[in-house]
Amino acid sequence: IRGYTQFRFTRTIDQETDSANPNLLGDRSVNGNAENFSIRRMRLIIFGDVSEHLGVYIQPDFANLPQGATTNTFFGQLRDTYADVYIDTTKIHRLRIGLSKVPFGFENLQSSQNRVPLDRTDPINSAVSPNERDLGVFYYWTPEDKQKLFRDLVDGGLKGSGNYGIFGIGVYDGQGGSQVEQNLNLHTVARLTWPTRLDSGQVVEASVQGYTGEYVVQGSAIRPLGRGSAITPAGTGGNTGHRDQRVGTTFVYYPQPFGFQSEWNWGEGPGLNDAQTAVETRWLQGGYAMVMCKVDTCDYGIFTPYCRWQYYKGGYRSIANAPYGTHNQWDLGVEWQIRKEMELVAEYSLVDGANLNAINQARVTSYRNFDGGVFRLQFQMNY
Amino acid sequence: IRGYTQFRFTRTIDQETDSANPNLLGDRSVNGNAENFSIRRMRLIIFGDVSEHLGVYIQPDFANLPQGATTNTFFGQLRDTYADVYIDTTKIHRLRIGLSKVPFGFENLQSSQNRVPLDRTDPINSAVSPNERDLGVFYYWTPEDKQKLFRDLVDGGLKGSGNYGIFGIGVYDGQGGSQVEQNLNLHTVARLTWPTRLDSGQVVEASVQGYTGEYVVQGSAIRPLGRGSAITPAGTGGNTGHRDQRVGTTFVYYPQPFGFQSEWNWGEGPGLNDAQTAVETRWLQGGYAMVMCKVDTCDYGIFTPYCRWQYYKGGYRSIANAPYGTHNQWDLGVEWQIRKEMELVAEYSLVDGANLNAINQARVTSYRNFDGGVFRLQFQMNY
Amino acid sequence: IRGYTQFRFTRTIDQETDSANPNLLGDRSVNGNAENFSIRRMRLIIFGDVSEHLGVYIQPDFANLPQGATTNTFFGQLRDTYADVYIDTTKIHRLRIGLSKVPFGFENLQSSQNRVPLDRTDPINSAVSPNERDLGVFYYWTPEDKQKLFRDLVDGGLKGSGNYGIFGIGVYDGQGGSQVEQNLNLHTVARLTWPTRLDSGQVVEASVQGYTGEYVVQGSAIRPLGRGSAITPAGTGGNTGHRDQRVGTTFVYYPQPFGFQSEWNWGEGPGLNDAQTAVETRWLQGGYAMVMCKVDTCDYGIFTPYCRWQYYKGGYRSIANAPYGTHNQWDLGVEWQIRKEMELVAEYSLVDGANLNAINQARVTSYRNFDGGVFRLQFQMNY
Repeated sequence: IRGYTQFRFTRTIDQETDSANPNLLGDRSVNGNAENFSIRRMRLIIFGDVSEHLGVYIQPDFANLPQGATTNTFFGQLRDTYADVYIDTTKIHRLRIGLSKVPFGFENLQSSQNRVPLDRTDPINSAVSPNERDLGVFYYWTPEDKQKLFRDLVDGGLKGSGNYGIFGIGVYDGQGGSQVEQNLNLHTVARLTWPTRLDSGQVVEASVQGYTGEYVVQGSAIRPLGRGSAITPAGTGGNTGHRDQRVGTTFVYYPQPFGFQSEWNWGEGPGLNDAQTAVETRWLQGGYAMVMCKVDTCDYGIFTPYCRWQYYKGGYRSIANAPYGTHNQWDLGVEWQIRKEMELVAEYSLVDGANLNAINQARVTSYRNFDGGVFRLQFQMNY
Repeated sequence: IRGYTQFRFTRTIDQETDSANPNLLGDRSVNGNAENFSIRRMRLIIFGDVSEHLGVYIQPDFANLPQGATTNTFFGQLRDTYADVYIDTTKIHRLRIGLSKVPFGFENLQSSQNRVPLDRTDPINSAVSPNERDLGVFYYWTPEDKQKLFRDLVDGGLKGSGNYGIFGIGVYDGQGGSQVEQNLNLHTVARLTWPTRLDSGQVVEASVQGYTGEYVVQGSAIRPLGRGSAITPAGTGGNTGHRDQRVGTTFVYYPQPFGFQSEWNWGEGPGLNDAQTAVETRWLQGGYAMVMCKVDTCDYGIFTPYCRWQYYKGGYRSIANAPYGTHNQWDLGVEWQIRKEMELVAEYSLVDGANLNAINQARVTSYRNFDGGVFRLQFQMNY
Repeated sequence: IRGYTQFRFTRTIDQETDSANPNLLGDRSVNGNAENFSIRRMRLIIFGDVSEHLGVYIQPDFANLPQGATTNTFFGQLRDTYADVYIDTTKIHRLRIGLSKVPFGFENLQSSQNRVPLDRTDPINSAVSPNERDLGVFYYWTPEDKQKLFRDLVDGGLKGSGNYGIFGIGVYDGQGGSQVEQNLNLHTVARLTWPTRLDSGQVVEASVQGYTGEYVVQGSAIRPLGRGSAITPAGTGGNTGHRDQRVGTTFVYYPQPFGFQSEWNWGEGPGLNDAQTAVETRWLQGGYAMVMCKVDTCDYGIFTPYCRWQYYKGGYRSIANAPYGTHNQWDLGVEWQIRKEMELVAEYSLVDGANLNAINQARVTSYRNFDGGVFRLQFQMNY
């Protein structure tokens, strides 16, 4: 049994005239008019090997707002519950059965406990939102030397992703983690990654990945472009869904002390049309690049300043009406690992991206862009 | 701390023309148009004896959809939380205080971890639905030799029920497990069971049981018989309730290797009238018979093929409007206990029974029968 | 890992003619027409020192009804999740970061596991309702001898509050424990307490405390004074809030064997106006006095009879529309600690106080007083 908790303090510092209210995919505590302390993640992890052939991993989160609730929060909900079935005792061949992370994107696989910036990026995370997880069966292949390397990258404080196989392939429901399945379609995913230690001792990792499936978007009443009466866009609800498929690339140069990380993905997925009257299958693309530097001090812990830029143009499948827009964001921050069990992160984000809330008010257009700056301070405890 | 999780993959294979959509009391993942992987049960059990006079048992489940939610699932909810107060240290006399199983029906008392078929039967489970549990105080009497026999039946892989006393009697709220009490009436239950080891080494168990109380049925708008406008049937809601009482018999011949199990119950309870306009107290009866065979192989685990038939004619008290109908079902399956910690079950169910969903649509009759076949595959991990 | 659970059996014994239905701030199982067994608190506590500089405390409760639910209950929700950051290893200076108790009122800080009466009083608890907790950062100062004294008061069965510092000061969201923040305002609180052991061996404790902030009240439709059509009172919702500030005094004479305890507080906070049309900032005051006697028997455990009187005139900030009224209550009861791990409490309450439910029915006035008597029996298990 172990876990971690992320407490945050949030403030929108700047909001351009005519801008929509602040809103981020990754953090509902950013909203411009009700911001203070919040809990972003509160995890308890129960794990272990039951036998040579079965590993169990269970992770509830206690920072959840149940559907329909507006005030009463911090309910317990599952993030992971899976069985690692080892075909042989070397753990080279493995079936992961249950609710677990979908192997698409380094950033999605890396634990939030280890990630340096506060949240994942929209372009990569929207592929597997919400919760980066899904119910299904995955096969992972990891030779023994790579098992060790994956372990070292996490234990050595290099912010690795953990072991999701050199090669991984799987089928899953496709609606996102802890979501009710809505159709008869299964998503399929495959990923190939190659982490390698250079002669210099530096580790680099490159990956390609892709998935395909059909996604059912939930609907919510809006006034299209702020005109006329309320409608729920066509193409929402039901049990069929829209094509949802992407391919992506990853490159990671682990920080010893300088690090560089970049991912990009292209594809198509559900997105609201420009008239805001129907959800259709639309093109999308986006990615990010990040530089960071790990500075070990003798007496004051480890400092990791970082700078990340992200760009996304596409639909948000997990949000009601699958709003389609562009998102541009710069994050500047520093992580201070005071001691192994305590971390402090200060981050300033320059955002120009769509507010994802469905607004059903006369003469108000939903999904306009928020343009401004948000400051957040996070205290993380590991236990 | 221990527990188990059941992952399923579901497919409706066959649906007769003019049949309603598939729907089962015991598994909401069966619905015909949104079926794939699901988690049926995800249990963590914290238990132990705090002292010679107090045993504690706490079991949350993390596969719950909160009331009113349609997409966001896998929230944590209590199944059991009880104190076993031992009057003396021999544990012969015991008071069980709190949220625990209602001693009515072998099948209800047997853990889903041990049951061979995927779910309980409608005729027996509808007596104590939802969740087979309730809040109350129960007294159990178990002589020491029978304490040992109950333990052996579970530990020996014979799929016993655990120790709910040779004689048990109790009072409880009556609305079902983890439900808010709705009236001032208490349910009363009593059960007498006699498990005995024959000279041949075989174990047989016979039981009688009965309960009585008043149950408040929740209402939901429907079009009665598909005609006219929406109404909520009379006799729903409020704080009085309908008479809810049954008697039942049980016979179990434990599988060494051939097993036979049968239960039947009769009584009256809340049920929607034939005009679908009001919930009344109506007669009910039903039961099941099952044969199974436990085959131990040297190298490939234990196989237990089984065949179960069930019949129910009566109301479903825990479902909105307490739909009244008939349910006929044949289950054919096999449980493969690969290793002690992993089980795989394949089950095909031939169903002719009422769809229990309240449908509020013009010219649509709710509660018509589904006639067809459902295939399910379950992977269970024990930890 | 430890915890406790409180099972109750409730009955309204007496309701005066023309009185509203029974309703208590501290126990939703009291309602007059659906009372029987209930679970008031079901706690699991995971705690420990991760290092010399970090203590972790996590406490979910599993007796929660999610917002909007009416029947399906016992979901898991966080009560506490905090980090105790010790500035030095003597633990004299401490920062408590996260979701924890707000240091206002002895009764609020004392654990329900240790409190003798079943629930806290309205005048003191309404200051930090719901849940006595909030998200924020608190600083506590506790010299080493007082650390020991605080510990002795709990371990010695004297029903202490635990260590919330001799001096404490903090900032927090202000909407209550496990509630979503609704504005940009932070609450501020400070408390000074002085527990001391007299030459006679008796311990007395005296405290002063105060807080200030702005609270956003939720709205719910009612018929003001039972007249006209439904309205939601003005001054509810939104993101600004009403002034919410109080000062309070505490005096505790610990029971060896006779004990006396009293608290009083004054201030202003959100309250519905007399016309029931708008929530305003209104004056409030109230407090309680309690006498109790701790009787150790050789063979039958510890008996603690008690008598408590409380009075409150003010608004209830955490209830929809912040109903304003008077509450007078006498509690007579006895706690029987059978063994360390089992306690039984019988309590009779004479209540004359506002029913806090918003009723939206023609010609029905909400928030009329309930005048009558309620009997409750509680079994508590500690583990």
